[in-house]
Amino acid sequence: MVHAVIMAGGVGSRFWPRSRTHLPKQFLPILSEATLIQNTAARLQGLVEPQHLWAVTNERHRTAILDQLPIIDPARVLIEPMGRNTAPAIGLAARHLLAADPDAVMLVLPSDHLITDVRSFHRVCRVAIDVAVETGGLVTLGLAPDRPETGYGYIQLDEHAPHARHRDEAFRVRTFAEKPDRVTAERFIHSGDFLWNSGMFIWRADAILREIARQLPALDRALDDIAPHIGTDGYDAALRAAYAVTPEVSIDYGVMERADQVWVVRCELGWSDVGSWDEVANRSEMSDGHGNHIHGDVILHDVTNSHIQTERVVAAIGIDNLIVIDTPDALLICRRGHSQQVKEVVQALKTRHPALL
Amino acid sequence: MVHAVIMAGGVGSRFWPRSRTHLPKQFLPILSEATLIQNTAARLQGLVEPQHLWAVTNERHRTAILDQLPIIDPARVLIEPMGRNTAPAIGLAARHLLAADPDAVMLVLPSDHLITDVRSFHRVCRVAIDVAVETGGLVTLGLAPDRPETGYGYIQLDEHAPHARHRDEAFRVRTFAEKPDRVTAERFIHSGDFLWNSGMFIWRADAILREIARQLPALDRALDDIAPHIGTDGYDAALRAAYAVTPEVSIDYGVMERADQVWVVRCELGWSDVGSWDEVANRSEMSDGHGNHIHGDVILHDVTNSHIQTERVVAAIGIDNLIVIDTPDALLICRRGHSQQVKEVVQALKTRHPALL
Repeated sequence: MVHAVIMAGGVGSRFWPRSRTHLPKQFLPILSEATLIQNTAARLQGLVEPQHLWAVTNERHRTAILDQLPIIDPARVLIEPMGRNTAPAIGLAARHLLAADPDAVMLVLPSDHLITDVRSFHRVCRVAIDVAVETGGLVTLGLAPDRPETGYGYIQLDEHAPHARHRDEAFRVRTFAEKPDRVTAERFIHSGDFLWNSGMFIWRADAILREIARQLPALDRALDDIAPHIGTDGYDAALRAAYAVTPEVSIDYGVMERADQVWVVRCELGWSDVGSWDEVANRSEMSDGHGNHIHGDVILHDVTNSHIQTERVVAAIGIDNLIVIDTPDALLICRRGHSQQVKEVVQALKTRHPALL
Repeated sequence: MVHAVIMAGGVGSRFWPRSRTHLPKQFLPILSEATLIQNTAARLQGLVEPQHLWAVTNERHRTAILDQLPIIDPARVLIEPMGRNTAPAIGLAARHLLAADPDAVMLVLPSDHLITDVRSFHRVCRVAIDVAVETGGLVTLGLAPDRPETGYGYIQLDEHAPHARHRDEAFRVRTFAEKPDRVTAERFIHSGDFLWNSGMFIWRADAILREIARQLPALDRALDDIAPHIGTDGYDAALRAAYAVTPEVSIDYGVMERADQVWVVRCELGWSDVGSWDEVANRSEMSDGHGNHIHGDVILHDVTNSHIQTERVVAAIGIDNLIVIDTPDALLICRRGHSQQVKEVVQALKTRHPALL
């Protein structure tokens, strides 16, 4: 059966002051009435049965998940005792899936991305599932890039996959490339054989565990220590003990880059990782003819190209190209194009106002 | 004796969201730790005895005055039952002064202006008192203009006053001119014989009452109806009855423009009527080397020439030339040079959010 694992352990700070430690980006209604994680679950409808939905998160966000995703069986919300990057989270989920379903095929999905073309998403997932089942390899979704973005990792294509019916969209992976500099990104785009690494993966649960065993033996041992306790009273203690000695490593760096059989399905999904307020502003629907997106009670005079969110009354006069995020206890005013610096603000707040994080 | 009458009936809306109906501009700490009206009273020290301080205001602001100016005898805070512009307020005060002191000389002072050169202020007030006493005429302070401002009224000079010792600074007034257009304002400045009308007046109480009797007989009758009740139980009722039929008219239009003996003392006081947030921003002391004036807890990244007031935490990134006034229930974000439009915002709020005014 096909299972989906929603990775919800993120603690991003780039959406301050809307995002806070107790409510990171995936739990916010960004670019939609629903939250990003709700949309992530909703777009699986018709692809994955509700009883095959899983999530991995941490204790702090368990309640937010249960509140926002009542469709998920609480027993399938896996709680990591501490964040160890994606490889341990995925390994843990794979062990749980295997215990529930020895033939489990696993969709690994970030909880905080945007996908506007759900029909294409279903189609490429089905292709990826086919490839994963037929080859026993590891499959990733690679997004056709539309600009030389320096904020994403890239995947270089190799030969087509040996499956006639998917040969236009499934490829063997030649290399994974880290976030490039501008010149390199332009070369990638120009070459035509690079895709953006989406962080979405499809594989049989036993396949990823085999690769973990081969490449990350310490993680494999930790998972071995946990597995016998799944569903027992000793689970929490075993999990904590194992995580204490588990290596902190990403699935890309720890497994994908040197895995044996790695495939990529090329896709166009109207995708974004929604990485900054600028990305939100650039993708927001305009609320007037002057390029503004206004959420809340705002009186505008000569305002253009501005993105304003507020729960209070705001008057804006003569401004252009600003992002204004107004929350009850903190306010962000940021020129469009500068929202990467929100991270530095959060850094400054750690000493000055930790309670506002 | 010299008495000072502080005109505190203003209900200005140009400092929203800091100013509100219950707390207009004169009661706000603008450009100082003290409020504008506190500074108005403080700068009279050494010029007018505390027991000769008076204020005219309305019922709504009586408490603010008593709180902010404990130096004033509460019996000398005159309460108008309704606003009727400056002529009735000044006439009422003159009748009270005369009842207390038949030789009263009266300084009439707006409560919400800025004067940075207090020594010059004292000196020109003394000159004006001399001229008022010696001529029995009406004296106004006229400010040497430094720009073709279209937001102020102007006073045109005529011959020097016939008093040798003040002849460099006291002049007969030829005309009062309303707020001019730009071209006219430039002509005024170029001619060299126009001064800004400050709204500060000096005269004997009996002199202004004589002119009121001559030019505004309806107001004179109303004051006649009130005067016998000053200090009696019937005062409030007489005042209300008289005000109900009092004409609404300014002292400039109703009296000064056609008065008999009108003098102006030319002065330079570091004066401003503090008419807008822009004026505040332009006169604020910089709090860093980038032209910013920051009042409150603000994290700045690449911010220049901005004026920010807040009681919460604000993060500002990549902004230039903005005015940000953040209050607990409303926020103003305004490009510098555009704060005249605050009046339009207030207009819009009258229907949308009267409670925020």
